[in-house]
Amino acid sequence: MKKIKWGIIGPGIIAHSFAQDFAHVTKGELVAVASRNEERAKKFADQYKIPKVYTSYESLCEDPEIDAIYIATPHNFHYDQTLLALQSNKAVLCEKPLTHIAEQTDELIAFAEQSGNYLMEGMWTYFLPVIQKAKQWVKEGKIGKVKHVKSEFGYPVPYDTSSRYYDPKLAGGALLDMGVYNVAMACFFFDGKEPSDIHVVARKAESGVDHDVTTLLVYEDEIANLTTAFRCKLPNSCIIIGEEGYIEIPDFWRAKECRRYKMEDCVEVFEDHRNGNGFEFEIEAVSIDLLEGRKSSEVVPWEVSKHLQSVMKKIMEKFD
Amino acid sequence: MKKIKWGIIGPGIIAHSFAQDFAHVTKGELVAVASRNEERAKKFADQYKIPKVYTSYESLCEDPEIDAIYIATPHNFHYDQTLLALQSNKAVLCEKPLTHIAEQTDELIAFAEQSGNYLMEGMWTYFLPVIQKAKQWVKEGKIGKVKHVKSEFGYPVPYDTSSRYYDPKLAGGALLDMGVYNVAMACFFFDGKEPSDIHVVARKAESGVDHDVTTLLVYEDEIANLTTAFRCKLPNSCIIIGEEGYIEIPDFWRAKECRRYKMEDCVEVFEDHRNGNGFEFEIEAVSIDLLEGRKSSEVVPWEVSKHLQSVMKKIMEKFD
Repeated sequence: MKKIKWGIIGPGIIAHSFAQDFAHVTKGELVAVASRNEERAKKFADQYKIPKVYTSYESLCEDPEIDAIYIATPHNFHYDQTLLALQSNKAVLCEKPLTHIAEQTDELIAFAEQSGNYLMEGMWTYFLPVIQKAKQWVKEGKIGKVKHVKSEFGYPVPYDTSSRYYDPKLAGGALLDMGVYNVAMACFFFDGKEPSDIHVVARKAESGVDHDVTTLLVYEDEIANLTTAFRCKLPNSCIIIGEEGYIEIPDFWRAKECRRYKMEDCVEVFEDHRNGNGFEFEIEAVSIDLLEGRKSSEVVPWEVSKHLQSVMKKIMEKFD
Repeated sequence: MKKIKWGIIGPGIIAHSFAQDFAHVTKGELVAVASRNEERAKKFADQYKIPKVYTSYESLCEDPEIDAIYIATPHNFHYDQTLLALQSNKAVLCEKPLTHIAEQTDELIAFAEQSGNYLMEGMWTYFLPVIQKAKQWVKEGKIGKVKHVKSEFGYPVPYDTSSRYYDPKLAGGALLDMGVYNVAMACFFFDGKEPSDIHVVARKAESGVDHDVTTLLVYEDEIANLTTAFRCKLPNSCIIIGEEGYIEIPDFWRAKECRRYKMEDCVEVFEDHRNGNGFEFEIEAVSIDLLEGRKSSEVVPWEVSKHLQSVMKKIMEKFD
């Protein structure tokens, strides 16, 4: 059986989780890693038994064996590296946010379309069985008309001017790093509907990046209430509230469980007893897309990325 | 031992809970009830073994045996009835919100001060051991500097134009009925600090009253995120988030438990194993205030009611 051969650009924290999850994937295998830091690349390759190590992104992109490239570098590098990989006729899975400048997402998508290469933003949360189950419950009308989506994502990130999280030049800040997951939940459960109004309360760290952002996305008769922070541990649930019940998804971004409530009672629980970190579903789905010749994902279609980026842009425009 | 003798005006739903809780009070006893509906008053008196029944509020207020009057009628009657009771030289505990027009709260307080009579807004939630414990944890610095207070209160109330909940003339609407509890939490945990900005997204039922309101109270570097609704069952927790942990209070308005978290771990739980509905703490505290000759409450001082009303006013001014 043919497997999709994957290469990774940027062996950072998230790439470790991603690489580990190939243990739970049947349609893809990890064959190469690239980092400008040779030692780092080799150590990563040793750890996950990856046969090929590259010390330039160009050389990884030129490797004819590789089908798909996963880009796991900081946001500000996504545009250039995605473009490089697409120009090398590789399929690209790029970590979210695809870009930190909305217009660049449009450009990348236009280039992918024109060059006929696969491109997907790595919104891996959308592929989690729990998130898919919650969406199914909503579609089946189990909580009635959805009126509120509440989503929180916040972890303390110690203030450090040498960290990319706090560096404006590296597209730092809580919204781009963690808040994007909240915005993704609003887009997902409100089916890409356009907000008619946006309220934002953003607080900034000394370095100038946002470290605490509350956003209300106002729709026709619905609302998304989103909080992200670098300075507080938030409870980190996503809650979808309908007129006839609600769904709670603890730690939604890496969800393993969702619970459906009617009034005070929990009436249904769905559990995902996976062994992986959760990237396995995304890797498998993209591998299948490629094996079946699709150029974009049905789970994270280009329209979803465009919409997500446009909402992110509108939120950032309201920062002081 | 002397006990404070209480009378109730308005034997509605909340008065039932209140009357039941005298079973758990040592410093007060319930001696009278008044309703313009004689049958209703008698039935209520029978149920709670209340010796005196009045069919006019005036006659209850004129009863020299009565020390304190609890006003449990709809909000729009609070002003007139509180004034009537104060003019009769009675101590007054009036259900929250004390008035639905902020200026009237100021007037009532001025009158109480001038006439030398006790007056307290019935924010019974403030007296609950769980809420007091949460405040103690905050004061002791157990969650670090508080940055977010999130509070939800929503229950489905079927749309009915004959119900006071949906009647604009009876000061209906979710904010005045349930949302006031959220605002009270913000005032409590942010110590009456004045918000510098307020964002409101309010949706209205056909009758014109608000049935779904999301409010952001923006402080210097903190935020209160409050939701109330008549059209959805909300999860109804209050969460106080500090830089070093957070406190979750399920069903905060009638709280029986609070939990303190550091990162993912619940590190402390406080439980209130009371037998009553929770009004017993308020009734006991007001009775003690009166026995000790105080003219206002230290738990719900007049400044707190004035502040609460002024914030409620600012929120309502942002309704379309």
